[in-house]
Amino acid sequence: MITVGIVGGAGYIGGELLRLLLGHPEVEVVAATSTRLADRRVDLTHPNLRGLTDLVYSAPDRLPDCDALFFTSSGTSDPAARAAESARGKVVFDLSPDLRLTDQRVYRRHYGEHPAPELLGTAVRGLPELDRDALTRADLVGVPGCMATASILALAPLTEAGLVGPEVYVDGRVGSSGSGASAGEMNLHAERSGVLRLFAPAGHRHEAEIAQATGASPRMSATGVDAVRGVQVVIRATTAPDVTEREIRAAYRARYKDEPFVRVVAQKRGNYRLPEPKILLGSNFCDVGFALEAGTRNLTLVGALDNLVKGGAGNAVQSLNIRMGWDERTGLGFPGLHPI
Amino acid sequence: MITVGIVGGAGYIGGELLRLLLGHPEVEVVAATSTRLADRRVDLTHPNLRGLTDLVYSAPDRLPDCDALFFTSSGTSDPAARAAESARGKVVFDLSPDLRLTDQRVYRRHYGEHPAPELLGTAVRGLPELDRDALTRADLVGVPGCMATASILALAPLTEAGLVGPEVYVDGRVGSSGSGASAGEMNLHAERSGVLRLFAPAGHRHEAEIAQATGASPRMSATGVDAVRGVQVVIRATTAPDVTEREIRAAYRARYKDEPFVRVVAQKRGNYRLPEPKILLGSNFCDVGFALEAGTRNLTLVGALDNLVKGGAGNAVQSLNIRMGWDERTGLGFPGLHPI
Amino acid sequence: MITVGIVGGAGYIGGELLRLLLGHPEVEVVAATSTRLADRRVDLTHPNLRGLTDLVYSAPDRLPDCDALFFTSSGTSDPAARAAESARGKVVFDLSPDLRLTDQRVYRRHYGEHPAPELLGTAVRGLPELDRDALTRADLVGVPGCMATASILALAPLTEAGLVGPEVYVDGRVGSSGSGASAGEMNLHAERSGVLRLFAPAGHRHEAEIAQATGASPRMSATGVDAVRGVQVVIRATTAPDVTEREIRAAYRARYKDEPFVRVVAQKRGNYRLPEPKILLGSNFCDVGFALEAGTRNLTLVGALDNLVKGGAGNAVQSLNIRMGWDERTGLGFPGLHPI
Amino acid sequence: MITVGIVGGAGYIGGELLRLLLGHPEVEVVAATSTRLADRRVDLTHPNLRGLTDLVYSAPDRLPDCDALFFTSSGTSDPAARAAESARGKVVFDLSPDLRLTDQRVYRRHYGEHPAPELLGTAVRGLPELDRDALTRADLVGVPGCMATASILALAPLTEAGLVGPEVYVDGRVGSSGSGASAGEMNLHAERSGVLRLFAPAGHRHEAEIAQATGASPRMSATGVDAVRGVQVVIRATTAPDVTEREIRAAYRARYKDEPFVRVVAQKRGNYRLPEPKILLGSNFCDVGFALEAGTRNLTLVGALDNLVKGGAGNAVQSLNIRMGWDERTGLGFPGLHPI
Repeated sequence: MITVGIVGGAGYIGGELLRLLLGHPEVEVVAATSTRLADRRVDLTHPNLRGLTDLVYSAPDRLPDCDALFFTSSGTSDPAARAAESARGKVVFDLSPDLRLTDQRVYRRHYGEHPAPELLGTAVRGLPELDRDALTRADLVGVPGCMATASILALAPLTEAGLVGPEVYVDGRVGSSGSGASAGEMNLHAERSGVLRLFAPAGHRHEAEIAQATGASPRMSATGVDAVRGVQVVIRATTAPDVTEREIRAAYRARYKDEPFVRVVAQKRGNYRLPEPKILLGSNFCDVGFALEAGTRNLTLVGALDNLVKGGAGNAVQSLNIRMGWDERTGLGFPGLHPI
Repeated sequence: MITVGIVGGAGYIGGELLRLLLGHPEVEVVAATSTRLADRRVDLTHPNLRGLTDLVYSAPDRLPDCDALFFTSSGTSDPAARAAESARGKVVFDLSPDLRLTDQRVYRRHYGEHPAPELLGTAVRGLPELDRDALTRADLVGVPGCMATASILALAPLTEAGLVGPEVYVDGRVGSSGSGASAGEMNLHAERSGVLRLFAPAGHRHEAEIAQATGASPRMSATGVDAVRGVQVVIRATTAPDVTEREIRAAYRARYKDEPFVRVVAQKRGNYRLPEPKILLGSNFCDVGFALEAGTRNLTLVGALDNLVKGGAGNAVQSLNIRMGWDERTGLGFPGLHPI
Repeated sequence: MITVGIVGGAGYIGGELLRLLLGHPEVEVVAATSTRLADRRVDLTHPNLRGLTDLVYSAPDRLPDCDALFFTSSGTSDPAARAAESARGKVVFDLSPDLRLTDQRVYRRHYGEHPAPELLGTAVRGLPELDRDALTRADLVGVPGCMATASILALAPLTEAGLVGPEVYVDGRVGSSGSGASAGEMNLHAERSGVLRLFAPAGHRHEAEIAQATGASPRMSATGVDAVRGVQVVIRATTAPDVTEREIRAAYRARYKDEPFVRVVAQKRGNYRLPEPKILLGSNFCDVGFALEAGTRNLTLVGALDNLVKGGAGNAVQSLNIRMGWDERTGLGFPGLHPI
Repeated sequence: MITVGIVGGAGYIGGELLRLLLGHPEVEVVAATSTRLADRRVDLTHPNLRGLTDLVYSAPDRLPDCDALFFTSSGTSDPAARAAESARGKVVFDLSPDLRLTDQRVYRRHYGEHPAPELLGTAVRGLPELDRDALTRADLVGVPGCMATASILALAPLTEAGLVGPEVYVDGRVGSSGSGASAGEMNLHAERSGVLRLFAPAGHRHEAEIAQATGASPRMSATGVDAVRGVQVVIRATTAPDVTEREIRAAYRARYKDEPFVRVVAQKRGNYRLPEPKILLGSNFCDVGFALEAGTRNLTLVGALDNLVKGGAGNAVQSLNIRMGWDERTGLGFPGLHPI
């Protein structure tokens, strides 16, 4: 058993970390911090945890010592504080965007000035399918963004195999939980319900992570859809000449046949022929699939996941499992629901 | 043509008043006020009005003179100001709860101390089906609450005819637009989506209006459901001895056969056998229906409407039409959509 | 390890049994039957199970021998066949309505003529909170209906303690998965989306189970709401004279303090003060709560659960765990999600 | 006043034609046909029309004579029958795909063999913004598809002005009403709710109409989303060199400044910056907008409409208005709702 703490536990990623870690047989959650809710029960904001824990939020300055720390975006705005915890011997998982990119200019283009640019490149990326070896000895892990994870997992087997060209269009669709637990008028139910809100017609930030991970040159848009959880990315690519459907399928299979949390979904029948986030809510799966337009080089790739699980907290827990040498699936066994 | 102004135009009732009044052939909308958005276009907050108007919000203190005024809850907190406008010769429609009740003690029980108790009982209620005569000469109109309207229209024909006893249970279900356009954490899409939120297990405020209008002794609960617009009330009553389904239907028909905006819906087949708000969005209909349990005196009444239209802005416009002697249906012709 | 089979595996309850039993460490699923889909993979209809199993549907006449059998409503229409399997030494869980009631007249009133009336009363009810002892040695278990389960769990502690009178109104709200996986026009997305469909204004069948379990005299209505999973029941009762909120809470606590799957939810703050099915999807919890109107004897009880889990498949698995002497929570650990 | 009939009146397009034509001051609806529902009231299937009409469905072989006929896809499968009605002197509006395309090979690629290829090219397209002149004297009108209409209206001003290259990606998102009123398992609420169903990853049929109308070379995908009504198309295009945002806006304005039903929506603030179908339900607007990625030639175009109105029945009625020389907006005044 190790002890873990969650810095910034009251948001949606914080709640999902709590759900997964409270159900994890190898860890003990010793703290979740919240400035606003210190000394209040965590199940006040995360009512699904009622009866599972009596944990109350800690004030951020009263974080007890622990073996591993998870920082959410709402935890602290100072990435140096996270690196410092790692330097003090803790294994640190950072779920904010701060430690995902390696190139300061790229960071600046998408996020503005970095508060501690010397940290860029110091963290291991927490994407087990690409980073498993490095994660076994990582002490500072930067967990990737939700749409980036889906995109990278859909693209990487094909870019690595040279089956698609670098120019790709990524169209992300995302539920409202991706906007966080803070109230803003644009996220009111009456405004957000039923939308197809193209909040980023081009240049979405996750372009940078996708490019860094795959070498592709993505252009990325994003649309908010009427869902709470769930991400789907639809990627338009062009195959190298004469690439067949069989080769694409083989490339995915080769890459993912032993992966516990990636499924290749590209079927000819049924209601769920391509990856669909609806059936992944709560699960750590990322489903990837593809469709090659007959007689052309037009390839459509699809990735789907739960933005709070494989797109965040689940990726972090899977990374922890790897880091600690545990079975990678520990605590992540929920398969998702159908119908839902 | 008369000139009209909307005091508190940026909320959801304000937007619906704008939609209806901009499409009304007998009125000219000369102002809609908003403190926060003065000098901004009204279609910034009401995007459905794009292309229909170039109106901008007025600061509340720059309201031009006009023949009729509609006050929404967000307009001013001072009911005396509304009464004063009426005294100055304007026809005033108040959509806040301030002028709905007549008894100060009843008001206090549900809302606390009234800011101007001398005004209680001075307004005519704006429920055309009950108040048509009084509305022809009213200068101060208190438009009833959304669930109250549906309940009163479902109950009144039967209480008037002595067909049901006074003890009734009213169960209201309401969409998120009933909570207004102000952002609060509990109305975030991620929190409000998919709910069956029993926010008032008993003692809902609209009890008072229903009692006042019908003489019944209602107990009322209310649940927030996953809809933006729409109210449904399900009322459980006990019939007087030996009352038949035929008598109930006859009582409704007698009461509503000439009403342009009340339909009796109690069918044996089809997917929409009882009143359903889904097909009423945007319309000024209140559908009412009933089911008498065979061999018993257990009677279920159902009312449905769009809370922003027949439950608010539409009732006000219908009242205006009556007051001005116009065809009552003017500007209120939209029948609702199916499917939706 | 025991072997289990699911007769009628292609419907929604069948899928949920598969999800729970495939994840159960003490059982091996050896068959799921389907007439229409024999020899097709079970994950064709239950896409959430992709990667978890290679099971294909068996034709019903090719059911292999196994230790326990689960019959869903779509399995076989002949209850005698289920009893026969039990007589042959299998532990049989029947999720159809056939074996829930004990009184033939009551059955007839709600369902028509029973195909094998001699079986009425021969099964043990599969509601662990009431039937735990009997379940330890039951070979034929009749799993209760979804809304009945929620209602019974909300009512029983109070009827047993004499805190409420027998006359209660039960208002059930249920998602579309309760209508099953067969296509009918009334369950089309365009027709079913956004509804408040009062499909049973009175006399819902589950009245009979609630009466049988609690001794109460329920009148029950039911409304289809815009959700796929989820049941909420709102029960209006009258307390015995002078009953206090504290006594009600104490009665619930006493009854449920050691129950792994019932939580008492009756809070004064937060967004989830009373039981809400939204946060229970996929979980085996039944949350129960109450509100006593101040100064009155008007008591509102609320129960919520996932109709496919605690309202069906989960109750069956929990009953299996009891029957086999395993930890009752085995395979049922998923707590539900928030937000969702 | 002219008399009109609807052949195939029981589907969703049929219902929308009824809603619009029953509210149209210049026409009298004399018949709506349905094989299955002959002699049943039209408001059985279109409950929003209750109280507006006593019309019953006619058997198809008992269609009375009338001045104009609207054929929906469910009306008759024989396009020659429609042409024959036109030849007999009626003005015929065909809402099926049969008369939209002019090139037999193109038709065959997307739909298979045409039942009456000699008719291809004989109808005038019913897209007022492009075909106004021809419509003034058309007797056979082929109303375009819903996603095609949105795409053509978003693209045409720019292709006509030479501002974008021919290669475009069209991503369509569509609600469940686009699948019609017939029950299929994949359109069950439990299966269709919450989906992001990429039912056409490439090669969607509406490519052909878009190409024919604009000269562009579209590649088109389509995703079913959790909405009943509504279409949004997101089009990725590349501008000609040095094209500015100002030129694009000017091209749209020039083309649409006098159009009653096209609005250019491309704003820098507010919650509805780009076209959003949510606020168009029931209206005949097609909103079009764009975003040019700064410093690039990457242009995103967006179109939105209600698939049953501007994407079908509304376009047909607008075409009728033009053909008869009436004000084009007659009967089409509903602006849409917000919030909804």
